[in-house]
Amino acid sequence: MTTIMIIGGVAGGMSAATRLRRLMEDAHIIVVDKGPYVSFANCGLPFHLSGEISSRDKLLVQSAEGLTNRFGLDVRPETEALAIDLKGKQVTLKHDGKVYQESYDQLILSPGAKPFIPKMEGLEQARNVYTLRNIPDLDHIMTALADKDEGMVTIIGAGFIGLEMAEALTKRGFQVTLVEKAPHVLPPLDQEMASFIQEALSRNGVKVVTGQSAKAFKDQGKLIILEDGSHLQSDLTILSVGVEPENTLAKEAGLELGLRGGIVVNHNYQTSQKDIYAVGDAIIVKQELTGQDALISLASPANRQGRQVADVIAGLARPNRGSIGTAIVRVFDLSAASTGLSERLAQQNFDDVAVVHVRGNDHASYFPGASPITLKLIFNAKTGALYGAQAVGAKGIDKRIDVLATAIKAGLTVADLPELELTYAPLFGSAKDPVNMVGYAAMNVMEGLSRSIQWYQLQDELASGKVLLDVRTDQEAAQAPFEGALTIPLDDLRQRMDELDKSKTYIVSCYSGLRSYLAERLLRQAGFDVVNLDGAYALYRSVYPERFN
Amino acid sequence: MTTIMIIGGVAGGMSAATRLRRLMEDAHIIVVDKGPYVSFANCGLPFHLSGEISSRDKLLVQSAEGLTNRFGLDVRPETEALAIDLKGKQVTLKHDGKVYQESYDQLILSPGAKPFIPKMEGLEQARNVYTLRNIPDLDHIMTALADKDEGMVTIIGAGFIGLEMAEALTKRGFQVTLVEKAPHVLPPLDQEMASFIQEALSRNGVKVVTGQSAKAFKDQGKLIILEDGSHLQSDLTILSVGVEPENTLAKEAGLELGLRGGIVVNHNYQTSQKDIYAVGDAIIVKQELTGQDALISLASPANRQGRQVADVIAGLARPNRGSIGTAIVRVFDLSAASTGLSERLAQQNFDDVAVVHVRGNDHASYFPGASPITLKLIFNAKTGALYGAQAVGAKGIDKRIDVLATAIKAGLTVADLPELELTYAPLFGSAKDPVNMVGYAAMNVMEGLSRSIQWYQLQDELASGKVLLDVRTDQEAAQAPFEGALTIPLDDLRQRMDELDKSKTYIVSCYSGLRSYLAERLLRQAGFDVVNLDGAYALYRSVYPERFN
Repeated sequence: MTTIMIIGGVAGGMSAATRLRRLMEDAHIIVVDKGPYVSFANCGLPFHLSGEISSRDKLLVQSAEGLTNRFGLDVRPETEALAIDLKGKQVTLKHDGKVYQESYDQLILSPGAKPFIPKMEGLEQARNVYTLRNIPDLDHIMTALADKDEGMVTIIGAGFIGLEMAEALTKRGFQVTLVEKAPHVLPPLDQEMASFIQEALSRNGVKVVTGQSAKAFKDQGKLIILEDGSHLQSDLTILSVGVEPENTLAKEAGLELGLRGGIVVNHNYQTSQKDIYAVGDAIIVKQELTGQDALISLASPANRQGRQVADVIAGLARPNRGSIGTAIVRVFDLSAASTGLSERLAQQNFDDVAVVHVRGNDHASYFPGASPITLKLIFNAKTGALYGAQAVGAKGIDKRIDVLATAIKAGLTVADLPELELTYAPLFGSAKDPVNMVGYAAMNVMEGLSRSIQWYQLQDELASGKVLLDVRTDQEAAQAPFEGALTIPLDDLRQRMDELDKSKTYIVSCYSGLRSYLAERLLRQAGFDVVNLDGAYALYRSVYPERFN
Repeated sequence: MTTIMIIGGVAGGMSAATRLRRLMEDAHIIVVDKGPYVSFANCGLPFHLSGEISSRDKLLVQSAEGLTNRFGLDVRPETEALAIDLKGKQVTLKHDGKVYQESYDQLILSPGAKPFIPKMEGLEQARNVYTLRNIPDLDHIMTALADKDEGMVTIIGAGFIGLEMAEALTKRGFQVTLVEKAPHVLPPLDQEMASFIQEALSRNGVKVVTGQSAKAFKDQGKLIILEDGSHLQSDLTILSVGVEPENTLAKEAGLELGLRGGIVVNHNYQTSQKDIYAVGDAIIVKQELTGQDALISLASPANRQGRQVADVIAGLARPNRGSIGTAIVRVFDLSAASTGLSERLAQQNFDDVAVVHVRGNDHASYFPGASPITLKLIFNAKTGALYGAQAVGAKGIDKRIDVLATAIKAGLTVADLPELELTYAPLFGSAKDPVNMVGYAAMNVMEGLSRSIQWYQLQDELASGKVLLDVRTDQEAAQAPFEGALTIPLDDLRQRMDELDKSKTYIVSCYSGLRSYLAERLLRQAGFDVVNLDGAYALYRSVYPERFN
């Protein structure tokens, strides 16, 4: 009988185990996990902190007993894999203080990632600093919070998980401070898209400190010293600055490691050692768009890889095609999502990178409850190749990014997006969905119908003598002025064109970018030198709220 | 100055007009419409009946004045186009009783579709029979309803719009009867998917009569006689049996017509007459999957075509690639959507058509509020080509069908669906989304790992001596028995396999199809002859509720 041992019983490991059983009824399948629980919902942990998932039991998706009964698995929780004997094809396991050997024919490593802990002075003496990666971590934090219903919480790291925890702990009544080393929250997104989330955090009472990291802890962790020397009082601190591959076992066994300690595997998930496979957050994958090595710590690819490695072991061809990376986070009343490359990463990897932003509603404006989506597309201005997309809004963010993730994965171009036939009834979408619109906008750029500048170029362009022309109505401009702009409402522009100077270059703006594009077309056809401020006032103001106070 | 005249000022026509202005600032663009309003929200009409869109003004998306001010259009409502003089390039127009000629350089026909009215005895004498296609139609119905807050309403035709009206008028307090000629409601979907909607209609008090059409009206319409001779009392009747191309003007001008009177256009939207173009519901398009002529009356393609014909006239290459057809409807607490071909249409057009049904939640089950989605995929069992998809459920239906519509449009195959990286956080989706799952299920069929039978094959298979094996728990089977089934719970199956007979063929079922697939794999590997009932009990019961009373 073949024995397949799987080390790590969560996403990738358990997917491998259950698929293996469906393909190899006779195999002995051993799943060891050093933690007390296998198959728990690690993406759900922050929502138990907030109470949205009120029962801790809900997080324990499948029990070891249930998996044993249904799949005939040999599940061994609280069992640590100490060493691999490559020649003897044995693993040294430790459970309840006892150390023993177990043989394998094939071994699958699915150790996952562990929280990255930066070097910080006084961390070891701190009594109130936690990470959140598994159920015991959650239990520790819940215990620490049990006797508190107010106080100062610091979250170090404003990535997807850091933001979920910021929301959760704010909802529990704590004063939360978020500290992020990057210049903005949600570093995987570009700054202007993240700015909407930053605003939502502030509006909901979270104090956001960007461009700073924690340097030291004092007073057993009650005081945090930042790089610039400023201090934060903190009753409880959560470190969420990212993860790194859990590679201890692989490293000691001499398996080949690569980028940031990730386990090197081939397209069949084989490590450098013949009968040892690896999947999940610990392995290096190809970023599908750049072809470069990447570490992508996401549940969906881990689950897919687990299933695929089972297929490989059972003799089915299932090469790993790589990942593009798709992620979403809800932050209070907004959600933000991204797929593929950010503008920053696309610029680093490709020439002719262009972007467009559109603002459209999640469903027909004439149906009650419509809410705006800001959608960004990153593409190649010459070929139309799609590199990435980002979206922020209250509703319908997941749907648009899922459609665009599918388009990117399929190798569609900008010109294909208007052709997508998406579901439309007034409560679900629009006859021209934001995804169609962003395709039209990108085609306008590619075909030279629109020439746009980005939010980060505006100040320089104005400094060089260009004139900002605001085509919103007089009322809109009076209520929320765009400083230094000349205002001619779009609907008056044909009549008032003689107020403009053909020797000048105009930068047109409106609220969201729709009217400014109309003005751009009108003025260019009338012989003016004109560019469009992509995303217009709404986007610019979101990045620089302080310029509008 | 070029004069472009557009006949029909709603979806396709107005998209053409506004895009033309952005490309040709100097053109004289005339938009005539025989109705009092241009650019109204015809997909919103049923929702004003229900009161969900409370203000009629909301349906008037853009006014003639607004369009004139913003786009410099020459908008002429209540203007009927009576005839086209092809040689003289003139159209005879009629407004307010006056008839006049107007010249054009290019003419765009966007007349839309009109309700199809079947021949029915007594229809002309009926005083209470309406159709709903535009604002005046809506006004007539609203007036007829104004003095009523109860009564019997009959809706003839249970397509997408018929169902929206059935819900709207039920919510207004009427006793609604739906009459549909096809064997089930929502004829564009396959029967088993439509059955969930049929159940929702019944549960919400709508009387559903299928396989019947109205033959005659008596008593000024108060009495409707059906084909089988039965009678319906009706205070108000809405005819919603479909639409047909509004081709009167095109026909009289001698333009080439085709399928069901649709206007024939080439890939540049040119009709048989050089300077006359046509777009929208009145034209014949290519069904992209079959390459056949089709009439597709949907707002999204009409809007796209309007924009594209403007591009063509302005000299930009923009060939019409055809349509796959994507649609959605909400019916009380459920939604149903489809894209591409139904199983029935795929079978008519292709060999080796296979289908799978999966049932998964709209988001992670461990996050509160998850609700089930039944998702059907129609594909080629040899090549994996995607033909169509259908989904029913309370939430997340639009998203899954949008992703699959994108996949179909992109030419992806079954094997690409598990690779899609969709947004995942517990409140938005699952690490394995139903779209991924349906891809896995289809691959299992393609690779011979699963052999399934469909709901409509079960009775014949049982009659031929096969044995139904229900692997739900004993409690589930006792509460909702599957008649004639042998029950062995999945988790006991390995232990109780000796109760089965290797000379028999087993059909395994559970509730939703997940456990039955596991049982299928287990039994096949143990040497049993076994097939899986695709969609299992839940799907079968939905089609044949009467067999479970």
